Amino acid sequence: MKILIKDPLILDFKEEKFVTYRAHIMIENGTISDITNDLPEDLSGFDEIIQASQLVALPGLINTHNHSPMSLLRSFSDDLRLMEWLDKKMLPAEENMTQEDIYWGSLLGITEMIKSGTTAYADMYIHIDQIAQAVYDSGIRASLTRGLVFLEDDGGQRLKESVDLVQSWSGKGDGRITTMMGPHAPYTCPPENLKEVMEIAKELGVPIHIHLAETHEEVEKINKRYGKSPTEYLADLGLFDGEHHALLAHAVHLDEQDIALLKNMKGGIAHNPYSNMKLGCGIAPVSKFIEKGILVGLGTDGAGSATSLDLFKEMKMASGLQKLEHLDPAIIDAHAILQMATVNGAKILGIDDQVGRIEKGKKADIILVNVNQPHLVPHHDLVSLLVYSAFGQDVDTTIVNGKILMKHRQLLTIDEEKVLYEAQRRAKRIVEGV
Amino acid sequence: MKILIKDPLILDFKEEKFVTYRAHIMIENGTISDITNDLPEDLSGFDEIIQASQLVALPGLINTHNHSPMSLLRSFSDDLRLMEWLDKKMLPAEENMTQEDIYWGSLLGITEMIKSGTTAYADMYIHIDQIAQAVYDSGIRASLTRGLVFLEDDGGQRLKESVDLVQSWSGKGDGRITTMMGPHAPYTCPPENLKEVMEIAKELGVPIHIHLAETHEEVEKINKRYGKSPTEYLADLGLFDGEHHALLAHAVHLDEQDIALLKNMKGGIAHNPYSNMKLGCGIAPVSKFIEKGILVGLGTDGAGSATSLDLFKEMKMASGLQKLEHLDPAIIDAHAILQMATVNGAKILGIDDQVGRIEKGKKADIILVNVNQPHLVPHHDLVSLLVYSAFGQDVDTTIVNGKILMKHRQLLTIDEEKVLYEAQRRAKRIVEGV
Repeated sequence: MKILIKDPLILDFKEEKFVTYRAHIMIENGTISDITNDLPEDLSGFDEIIQASQLVALPGLINTHNHSPMSLLRSFSDDLRLMEWLDKKMLPAEENMTQEDIYWGSLLGITEMIKSGTTAYADMYIHIDQIAQAVYDSGIRASLTRGLVFLEDDGGQRLKESVDLVQSWSGKGDGRITTMMGPHAPYTCPPENLKEVMEIAKELGVPIHIHLAETHEEVEKINKRYGKSPTEYLADLGLFDGEHHALLAHAVHLDEQDIALLKNMKGGIAHNPYSNMKLGCGIAPVSKFIEKGILVGLGTDGAGSATSLDLFKEMKMASGLQKLEHLDPAIIDAHAILQMATVNGAKILGIDDQVGRIEKGKKADIILVNVNQPHLVPHHDLVSLLVYSAFGQDVDTTIVNGKILMKHRQLLTIDEEKVLYEAQRRAKRIVEGV
Repeated sequence: MKILIKDPLILDFKEEKFVTYRAHIMIENGTISDITNDLPEDLSGFDEIIQASQLVALPGLINTHNHSPMSLLRSFSDDLRLMEWLDKKMLPAEENMTQEDIYWGSLLGITEMIKSGTTAYADMYIHIDQIAQAVYDSGIRASLTRGLVFLEDDGGQRLKESVDLVQSWSGKGDGRITTMMGPHAPYTCPPENLKEVMEIAKELGVPIHIHLAETHEEVEKINKRYGKSPTEYLADLGLFDGEHHALLAHAVHLDEQDIALLKNMKGGIAHNPYSNMKLGCGIAPVSKFIEKGILVGLGTDGAGSATSLDLFKEMKMASGLQKLEHLDPAIIDAHAILQMATVNGAKILGIDDQVGRIEKGKKADIILVNVNQPHLVPHHDLVSLLVYSAFGQDVDTTIVNGKILMKHRQLLTIDEEKVLYEAQRRAKRIVEGV
């Protein structure tokens, strides 16, 4: 399969900033084979030519934290306090989800992500085989994790599923699928279990995906239980010693001392600004992470809390929250935010050797954005426009692993109508009686 | 002109909440003439029939604070500190704007607003005749204000322009255009001038549109100058005595004592959440305003600071900011937020006798939203979906004063291509050398 993206304005990250230049992008067998101003006279060798002179090409956005099947619970229980939301709404509804529901819920989330310019994402949930199948079928790139909670038993069956996931799905879908081990959070994973999971992850050579310090209550709970902060708890188990690659979701409540413990960590933070706002959790110390050289990527969290999986929205929130927290509009700029949503996301998922940039030899995970619209004109600064004024629906075309998943807003690998129909019908049944 | 909106799901505010019901909406000469389940057999009397069974009809959104020509400066100077932003970028660029630039800049902002579901808005700027012309030509509804600064002279010419605006434009465009008097802010209007403007406004029977306590610096400045807070300053001049209708933009830095001074005010607050975040101003005490019965509406502020004029984005921010400020997701709900963007906006603009609701006898300011999309499914709660997951581009059709301004995403009164062309070309010239 040979694709030519003809004449886009390319927006790519170089060293410290994003730069723009105009060139043709050639894709062959999933990989960017050339970026050039010279076109062969005969274009018949290309299976597909995308006319892109009116579009901006940028690296696909990367969502570092999601629970995709929760898209079925979108708008089911907003504006409630966390424990009411979780205990009275989310958990009972999740109890009603069948394996098939998980597949369709995940596909609903993936459909939304592809349509809003996300080309890779990290998922943590149960019935993970179903999610893997949805990822496989849809063509998106994903790093999958079976969530592990150790409260009532030794978690043997769940651990087995985690290892099965890693062994059976890693590398599938022409390398699109990667996997992680997913101890859920400090407060749901006692030290001996966490230690075991970390060892298994190391043996299998996969990263750890874990929630950290999302709420003030978690900090209190861990402090009471272990006499330390959640971050110290993980640090003492060795998670940040540089031997493990870790994806830390949320990381809202970390003080200076906690942040210092992350100094040598491999991996980084999945910052979920809107979920943190909407659940009343707080503002993650993103500027301080950056100052200390700790990688920060962007995530949405599940649609059960975030409602929308649009990373363009999250970019606006991420920037706004730091400016607000420090009462300083210069504390972070649009380039740093777009970097979080692309380059950093790839590093945090451990796939930056493959994606996150538009350059020869990288896998072709590219989105084309239509900036000739009233809310994106005039073009004083494209990065500012993308971060502060664009939304997912401005994405015209989404390409993952050299395959066109959406062309001019039309999905090519997913039957959108069927997804909407299945989602509606299943969601209705799931929340019955809850 | 007779229009039939056939079979939409109507979402309208009743007493304290939004409710949904299915019915046909009939529009005649700008007014909602009937809402009924009975259709005549012969529909040939309608000039236009909109098939809306797949769409949700809700009152058009109302943007209570904007500086529309600043859309030409969108993305020109983001991520800068306020004074650098203002003195080095905005003011020098505005110096370069011709009257024609103002017209096209305003039309650019209006185009974005119509495409994102805003049917009425409040504008404060200079060369206000040009803006009035753009409002007139486009078909949107607006409340226009000539901004008044009294720093170097007695403001005679500017006052004259303000009065001229009120006298020549009020009621124009079949009543779509209303006007206000616009003393810019406490720190740019000494007491004697403010008093004079308030008296003129009273004589002319129009409201006051004024910025209030946007930044901490303003509070300090006024305190130093007059020994009181900006809110006290306005209160002492009598603005909140119930005799004046006032639109207070921003109202970020008000303490309990300040809020108490607003108890008897007519009008309300234009809350601009994203501009306040992005400029690092702070979080307005919206929940406290609501608790005290003070009306709060939503605004974007100019695109020079807010970048985007999408009120769906502002709804997300407004809710998120309160939940964050109080660390309580239950502090405000989606209904209250949608109320701010519709019913309250109409009251604050003083046009709630005409718009803000979908009911017989009201002017037809209605938007139709396409909720059959991956990010808006399943439909557990439509109000939550609109507030937390919809964006401006989900608006399918926009109707103002019974005239269709956008039908199925196509603008009918504005030449979009020409607006984009003029905006690009003029914006480039305006920022040259700045």
